[in-house]
Amino acid sequence: MQTGSYAPDRVEMIALHGLPMVGPGMDLAELIAAGLKAASLGLQDDDILVVAQKIVSKAEGRMVRLADVTPSEEARRRGRETGKDPALVQLILDESVEVLRQGAQLLIVEHRLGLVMANAGIDQSNAAPGCAILLPLDPDASAARLVLALGRRCGCRIGVIIIDSFGRAWRKGTVGHAIGVAGLRALLDLRQSPDLLGRPMQVTEVGLADEIAAGASALMGQGAEAKPVVVVRGFSGLRDAAGTVRTLLRPRDQDLFR
Amino acid sequence: MQTGSYAPDRVEMIALHGLPMVGPGMDLAELIAAGLKAASLGLQDDDILVVAQKIVSKAEGRMVRLADVTPSEEARRRGRETGKDPALVQLILDESVEVLRQGAQLLIVEHRLGLVMANAGIDQSNAAPGCAILLPLDPDASAARLVLALGRRCGCRIGVIIIDSFGRAWRKGTVGHAIGVAGLRALLDLRQSPDLLGRPMQVTEVGLADEIAAGASALMGQGAEAKPVVVVRGFSGLRDAAGTVRTLLRPRDQDLFR
Repeated sequence: MQTGSYAPDRVEMIALHGLPMVGPGMDLAELIAAGLKAASLGLQDDDILVVAQKIVSKAEGRMVRLADVTPSEEARRRGRETGKDPALVQLILDESVEVLRQGAQLLIVEHRLGLVMANAGIDQSNAAPGCAILLPLDPDASAARLVLALGRRCGCRIGVIIIDSFGRAWRKGTVGHAIGVAGLRALLDLRQSPDLLGRPMQVTEVGLADEIAAGASALMGQGAEAKPVVVVRGFSGLRDAAGTVRTLLRPRDQDLFR
Repeated sequence: MQTGSYAPDRVEMIALHGLPMVGPGMDLAELIAAGLKAASLGLQDDDILVVAQKIVSKAEGRMVRLADVTPSEEARRRGRETGKDPALVQLILDESVEVLRQGAQLLIVEHRLGLVMANAGIDQSNAAPGCAILLPLDPDASAARLVLALGRRCGCRIGVIIIDSFGRAWRKGTVGHAIGVAGLRALLDLRQSPDLLGRPMQVTEVGLADEIAAGASALMGQGAEAKPVVVVRGFSGLRDAAGTVRTLLRPRDQDLFR
């Protein structure tokens, strides 16, 4: 149980500029540290670094050449049905444990990480021609490495949220969602917190890492002008060495929309 | 078509403190203006005021006494099936055009406003005993009145987003979502914007009002300590006199999850 007092009165979000194009094997913590320095921005305790999935994946070498993929019969069939490149469909299937829905240019899947999302988070924007970029192997672990490396540099305890743009079932437009979390609580449990009249709250859990992900995503932009790192400053009381995106994933047996 | 340049480099979010308990007939613009003054905070052009649905509904008198509701046969049946008070179920049905799913203590409906949400957004937290609070009749119009009244006071052009906490299909924890928008574009169309390599973007629409709603929601908190108004400062280029939450609603024929 946590009280509602997590909510800060003032939050600042600052996007970093001028990070180089990220490639396989680059040290992301070092690049971010250089970006922070260029912005004359020192990290502080409880800062939350929101990082776009794309640069994490690129640094981790999660690019695949479509020409190297041999589509299965299922991938060829779903490719015909959706209008998607069968090699891309094969990558999506390889990254997924279940296909929930299929539409034009679209497969809604449960990713092997448990994330329900379009096309397993694989896309070709900002990738080299003929290549696709997969999600990081373990985004919680990627986030934890950044918490450690950047925390060591700044001598402070930060949180990291790795985000991706998700479509939503009933609403148009993508919104930033957490896909990896480290160093902070992703889900707040407010059960037993009193409402204005002293009764237990009806809203009992808040997807805080998703709220922060969404807000920071609005500073990142998309495409050529994208800024893949945003510092979020003002939250406190959220530190959690066991923080993970998994707390945000609804168990299958509580899911009404499979 | 809009470029990716909407994304600001720095955003500040400030929650107002000390607003009084809101009741029917109160002038919300006046209350917010007083709260801004108490915080020594003057509104500026392009500020976005994010306002919790609850205080809008209360000011508009959208409270209903459950004892005054006569549940229909359907409401009684769904009450038995879900464990919810049949009178509350009746209110939910009255506010909805379709029930999508039903679970323990839960009806997922399409609200008459087109919003797909749990329990038609009706809840009893922070309501007088035996009462429930419905969504505003027309949240876009409520937002537009605030844009006008507060814009007149400050002599500037602001945007307003009225938000509510929504559960999500596949993820745990509520997240703030826009239910009413005025003065700014809710959905950004980035089709034709170039990616890093100059090709058209794959992500073509951004649910920006939902991203801002989510971020601001993280400052509001829940329950007894809730702060129902947050000023979001730093966005520009989003002004739209025709802004509406309706652009965020996925048309039924594009919806894979009915």
